Amino acid sequence: MTQVNRQILLASRPQGTVTPDNFKLIETPLSSLVDGQVRIRNHYLSLDPYMRGRMSDAKSYAAPQPLNEVMIGATVGEVVESRHAQFAIGDKVVGMLGWQEFGTSDGDGLRKVDDSLIPLSAYLGAVGMPGVTAWYGLNTIIAPKAGETVVVSAASGAVGSVVGQLAKRAGCRAVGIAGGLEKCRYVVESLGFDACIDYKAGNLSQDLKAAAPDGVDGYFENVGGEVLDVTLAQMNAFGRIAVCGMIAGYDGQPLPLKHPAMFLTQRLLVRGFIVSEHMDVWPEALKQLGTLVAQKDLRFRESIVQGLEYAPEAFIGLLAGQNFGKQLVRLI
Amino acid sequence: MTQVNRQILLASRPQGTVTPDNFKLIETPLSSLVDGQVRIRNHYLSLDPYMRGRMSDAKSYAAPQPLNEVMIGATVGEVVESRHAQFAIGDKVVGMLGWQEFGTSDGDGLRKVDDSLIPLSAYLGAVGMPGVTAWYGLNTIIAPKAGETVVVSAASGAVGSVVGQLAKRAGCRAVGIAGGLEKCRYVVESLGFDACIDYKAGNLSQDLKAAAPDGVDGYFENVGGEVLDVTLAQMNAFGRIAVCGMIAGYDGQPLPLKHPAMFLTQRLLVRGFIVSEHMDVWPEALKQLGTLVAQKDLRFRESIVQGLEYAPEAFIGLLAGQNFGKQLVRLI
Repeated sequence: MTQVNRQILLASRPQGTVTPDNFKLIETPLSSLVDGQVRIRNHYLSLDPYMRGRMSDAKSYAAPQPLNEVMIGATVGEVVESRHAQFAIGDKVVGMLGWQEFGTSDGDGLRKVDDSLIPLSAYLGAVGMPGVTAWYGLNTIIAPKAGETVVVSAASGAVGSVVGQLAKRAGCRAVGIAGGLEKCRYVVESLGFDACIDYKAGNLSQDLKAAAPDGVDGYFENVGGEVLDVTLAQMNAFGRIAVCGMIAGYDGQPLPLKHPAMFLTQRLLVRGFIVSEHMDVWPEALKQLGTLVAQKDLRFRESIVQGLEYAPEAFIGLLAGQNFGKQLVRLI
Repeated sequence: MTQVNRQILLASRPQGTVTPDNFKLIETPLSSLVDGQVRIRNHYLSLDPYMRGRMSDAKSYAAPQPLNEVMIGATVGEVVESRHAQFAIGDKVVGMLGWQEFGTSDGDGLRKVDDSLIPLSAYLGAVGMPGVTAWYGLNTIIAPKAGETVVVSAASGAVGSVVGQLAKRAGCRAVGIAGGLEKCRYVVESLGFDACIDYKAGNLSQDLKAAAPDGVDGYFENVGGEVLDVTLAQMNAFGRIAVCGMIAGYDGQPLPLKHPAMFLTQRLLVRGFIVSEHMDVWPEALKQLGTLVAQKDLRFRESIVQGLEYAPEAFIGLLAGQNFGKQLVRLI
């Protein structure tokens, strides 16, 4: 009996907002492996904001996701068949196998992981790309000193939650920005941030002044849009802004900066980065993050939908900030 | 007979645009020197965009210019009386003696200069603060590699003209942006830039594409406003933007960025700087710049008004981009 693989393809490029009909679910029979190949049953698919960038064909750092091919995406799963010397049935692996239930790989970009102390799904979050993103932007660009104030937007998310917890460990005041009281409560009570601002309350500027009374030394930008503009206005001299995400900018709206002269008057440093271009830091970052998670010193939250067919809806929700914690799709 | 000093004070802070009645010219009798003091007859006063920032009391890197005190400003002049061991009558000196004909100093911040090979006024331009500003932003932030494209706004001005000439010497394609055909012709024909765009022609985006066909690797920002937004859209991956001036932002208008996601997608580095905070580079920069000017390998142009009473008008013109080259006021 031939097994069937379910896959989601990019059917069309979004005009502005992403819609469900930009995606297409298909069923494909699995072909037999050839020598050097390994087959993985994916357990979890990671949904991440960068995917929005790949869906469009605007000038960007990465080639656009091709139309009518399986959507790009990070996965964790288990080897179910192997004709590859380095992988055996039962191995747990992280890879970029995309929006599908089964992945077939020549082993390139596949990494075996140990799920005895760290839950498998964490390799897509705090001990994966989002965690390393937080680690890199905070340590390399913001480079916080004890006593400074670090602000992070999308604070309850996969990246933001790690940024704030690492900033606290560096002796900083950690201030989160998140959407809604429930997320803010989680950010302060469970993650241990010093304060969290609900941007939906509509008093972002005043609330930030209250939460960061000594001004902002480091800002980890996950969102873009108005949040960036308001935070920019409260940056201290020699403040650093790590630009990691600009969800609010992906749809193409202009961003009105009310205080552009702050770049100069406060001698700000702003740097955008893509964590996959800094592979040299991954081993050290993953080691530190893995240790913290295994010791339960780094907390994280997941938002899981069950079933590949719900991936588009969950992704659209992620772009609208509806997820709470790392957005995953459970595929088994 | 008591000599009279003419001085210009800040009479009021601008509400938006600077107007002549923000200034007040007064005549003050010169007091006698005490031990340790030196008196300078100022020959030239430098007018610079940073003064606009000091006139307002918005949060900034420097304390605001106090009301009813002599406007801050760099000067070159000649010692006419001295009770200071290190200065003798006839010495030529650069200092921050402000908008006045005579300065009295305890020697702090006063520097003797040699005007045998370098014209005295150049110490306020290419071999002074503007020159070092160009040198610092280009070498430290943009750090151009041969073959790259460097764009500079206000290209015919005191800073911009040096940026482009140094970029050419570093093996780069130098593209200027300036206001008007006459300035652009000067930037290409006299300063040796590869191209210059007249932003007043109204085709900034297309003209920049034509002048920088391989995209922009380094942008030296002297202006802010629309020029920044348009250039941002054409930055290459890992482009660097040195933010030196934001004249267009001083009056408080918001700056609509049409492509904010470029910070991320192109992994841009943006850094604002104030050259007076990097005194460590001044000796090396001034040595290089002085050598180039003395050998006539670095060209510059001056826009000189005669008489202290014309300083406010010339300053307002400078902010509106009406000067052509380094704006000076001749005081003798």
